[in-house]
Amino acid sequence: MSTSDWSLPETAVFDRIRTTLDDDTAAVLATVIAVDGSAYRRPGAKMLIRPDGGGAGSITAGCLEDEVRALAADVLADDSPRVETWDLTGDDDVWGLGIGCNGVITVLLEPLDESHHPVVDARGAGDAIGVATVVSDEPELDLAVGDRAYYEPADGFADGTGFPAAVLDELEDPTRTLVATGKSETLTVETDAGRVEVFVDGVRPPPDLVVFGSGHDVEPVVELANRVDFRVTVVSFRGGRADDDRFPRADGVVSASPREIPDLREWNADTYAVVMSHNFLDDRLALERLLETPIEYIGIMGPQKRFEEMREEFAAENRPITDAELKRIYTPIGLSLGGDAPYQIALSIVAEVVAVANDRTAQHLSRRGGPIHDRTERD
Amino acid sequence: MSTSDWSLPETAVFDRIRTTLDDDTAAVLATVIAVDGSAYRRPGAKMLIRPDGGGAGSITAGCLEDEVRALAADVLADDSPRVETWDLTGDDDVWGLGIGCNGVITVLLEPLDESHHPVVDARGAGDAIGVATVVSDEPELDLAVGDRAYYEPADGFADGTGFPAAVLDELEDPTRTLVATGKSETLTVETDAGRVEVFVDGVRPPPDLVVFGSGHDVEPVVELANRVDFRVTVVSFRGGRADDDRFPRADGVVSASPREIPDLREWNADTYAVVMSHNFLDDRLALERLLETPIEYIGIMGPQKRFEEMREEFAAENRPITDAELKRIYTPIGLSLGGDAPYQIALSIVAEVVAVANDRTAQHLSRRGGPIHDRTERD
Repeated sequence: MSTSDWSLPETAVFDRIRTTLDDDTAAVLATVIAVDGSAYRRPGAKMLIRPDGGGAGSITAGCLEDEVRALAADVLADDSPRVETWDLTGDDDVWGLGIGCNGVITVLLEPLDESHHPVVDARGAGDAIGVATVVSDEPELDLAVGDRAYYEPADGFADGTGFPAAVLDELEDPTRTLVATGKSETLTVETDAGRVEVFVDGVRPPPDLVVFGSGHDVEPVVELANRVDFRVTVVSFRGGRADDDRFPRADGVVSASPREIPDLREWNADTYAVVMSHNFLDDRLALERLLETPIEYIGIMGPQKRFEEMREEFAAENRPITDAELKRIYTPIGLSLGGDAPYQIALSIVAEVVAVANDRTAQHLSRRGGPIHDRTERD
Repeated sequence: MSTSDWSLPETAVFDRIRTTLDDDTAAVLATVIAVDGSAYRRPGAKMLIRPDGGGAGSITAGCLEDEVRALAADVLADDSPRVETWDLTGDDDVWGLGIGCNGVITVLLEPLDESHHPVVDARGAGDAIGVATVVSDEPELDLAVGDRAYYEPADGFADGTGFPAAVLDELEDPTRTLVATGKSETLTVETDAGRVEVFVDGVRPPPDLVVFGSGHDVEPVVELANRVDFRVTVVSFRGGRADDDRFPRADGVVSASPREIPDLREWNADTYAVVMSHNFLDDRLALERLLETPIEYIGIMGPQKRFEEMREEFAAENRPITDAELKRIYTPIGLSLGGDAPYQIALSIVAEVVAVANDRTAQHLSRRGGPIHDRTERD
């Protein structure tokens, strides 16, 4: 597997999984299901392993990829899933070339099969889904590694999963939370009939970034946002310049007037807007319409003074911007990185959007204290 | 000109200028020499315009590129430089499709000729240079638009520039500062014989990023750093995995032991180090050697706890890490953006390095207050 396949965004990894399923190519899916200590990637990280080398994705910073690939051959030969744990604590030199890692990492390896279709389909359709996978054999509950149940936010767990009702009851609440937050965790479920380990994978579609503008400066933003796994739509005002060719990395390019914004698409809390038309009137109208949506991030390019003028126009029209609305407006857009070249500006914008999408206030990790991730730490 | 040419890093723009000079292709170089109010790009930003379309670089967010290109044809026909000012304040709709900008921007347009060789050569050789260009015709001083003098940090202004000594005397101090900081500014020089406007362009080679590591996770860091115009060297410990093919975007790939670090290259304050070998021993040795150099940024991947262990080993060897050294060490590396995929991690690392290279503490511009740039503001 090449470095570029290894570092693909999650959406591209899922695309590769779909293609592999469609082609009926034998393959193994490796998923991080637990991490104790520090790790580069968190539970839920996936790597597709194909015997033909056409894999994709990463589960560590390279510490285990070779070992996992070797094991994958066994999984394919046996045609059965397995769970493997590696203890990398305090043993930095054990892995061949010395690229050891810290922490204990547990990985589920399973043959890619039709049981993966629902999650690929849901994510591709823009829906969140929970996947509960048994990761310990529990004969007394009639459950074995690889048994699987799906959870849809609107309907809960599907019927006919084969999971005992008592297990599903226990899973319901934590699964709801994991799916809502896009996190993944291995849970120990205790029932009167016995206990079982279940990995619950909260899978969400990528967040949406909508960029309003059509200048040359839009494409670097689109490109970097694509790299960090946003689904990017470019909205060009006044038509003239909107065509897909100019934004090859965008998932969609549309032409619209600012007034049409609310009806353009579904706007939800996982949608982020970057307003950079460089036209004061268009930007102001866009802001007005975006404030009508529930989105929590509206970044506006331009200096503070320009936004103050906008704000005065809002006030003059008896529609003052409220303090609650101000919290959703990020202007000047971006992080204070200091560069002024197109990619430097795009970097500052996309880094800000990533931080907001992950509920972070961007700052230097070394100066902040506390862990890097919410539950585990990166190595 | 395509969007990808427009958004090229400065180093690539200079490469294109060099190629154009070498090929003897007629072309115009447009340089922002002054900005009043808000602007996307600051003084010193350059755009190469070739009649064959093979241009590169940007001078605004797209507001003036078409106008400047039209003017360039006149400049080529006349074979003489000119200075043009556009007042874009308060007139958002004047530019065709409405992609107006705010601010007053002044641009020097000049036929590309041998007078550009010294700056291209100096930058390419990794040296800083100052270029003083007359931007107002002043017959009483015998100076005309386009007259040029070069300033080298070690030697000051070169002899035989044609500039009156009184003008060079006045330019000496501000030019030293501009070259040292890589900034550019139009200065009004007053002498007994008259006044003249001189644009002083402080041109510095790109900063250096040295990445220690050879895992898959290195390439996304290299790629993003390349995009934001670092000259990137990958240093692989223990040889095995070092080859240029794996890091196509790196300017150099070398294999070395941590002990060889001080002798590997020249280390100066414009060099930044990212330590991500994932091997505790190698990282610790690398840190020890990097602390012997004058570099101000040593980012180390891994959790705080891992660094504390490193610190204890330093102390146990009677070589405690001082508070002054701690200020140069950034670990956990990167900004708190919250993502864990390879490109998200790379984004957090590269954004941090850009901030440090620009003497910034990374934070949300909208929550910080104050202007975006030091002297002008972005639009």
